[in-house]
Amino acid sequence: MAQNTKAQEKKQMVRLAKIKVNPTYLNAYNKALKEQMNAAILLEPGVLTYYAVADKKRPTSITILEIYADTIAYQSHIETVHFKKYKTTVKDMVQSLELIDVDLIAAAVKDKK
Amino acid sequence: MAQNTKAQEKKQMVRLAKIKVNPTYLNAYNKALKEQMNAAILLEPGVLTYYAVADKKRPTSITILEIYADTIAYQSHIETVHFKKYKTTVKDMVQSLELIDVDLIAAAVKDKK
Repeated sequence: MAQNTKAQEKKQMVRLAKIKVNPTYLNAYNKALKEQMNAAILLEPGVLTYYAVADKKRPTSITILEIYADTIAYQSHIETVHFKKYKTTVKDMVQSLELIDVDLIAAAVKDKK
Repeated sequence: MAQNTKAQEKKQMVRLAKIKVNPTYLNAYNKALKEQMNAAILLEPGVLTYYAVADKKRPTSITILEIYADTIAYQSHIETVHFKKYKTTVKDMVQSLELIDVDLIAAAVKDKK
């Protein structure tokens, strides 16, 4: 199960990003998204978790769950080279973007054996 | 980073549940949800991941990301005592429930140190 302390969790910045992608560019968009996610998790101590999912019935409708250690980590994130590259790459691929600030009610993740 | 193999990931059943809770029962609902999540992760090998989040502006709007090892694990899950207890408990607390089948595009989760 997730091992964060309560104090750490309270500071976390958690968000849902809802993205509609131009179907023409869906593969290119998904590739750019994965690159950004992997770079951020690898390089930034304050980027904790990303899950990106696509509706089965409408794969251009994408939802991303994002967890940052705190708002400072997020502000630092959006200034990184990999994030700016992602934003430039997908600029004309994204039809709409909705950002929803959320509170984590609970997370339960199976321990890796 | 997540250590699942590609073959394991392909079989996974991933879903978003969007729930609107009657405000009167929000605390009771969240408590029942946490109990269900924790029991499922602890007791069921095929229940892998839950993240439950609430909109900051509207805490009665809840989104849950659910990952099961496969559809058999999910079918087994909904027959468990803890899941049935949850469904009975929240029956009159939930105003609406939308289940959206999704594909995982990518997950990136920080390794625990």
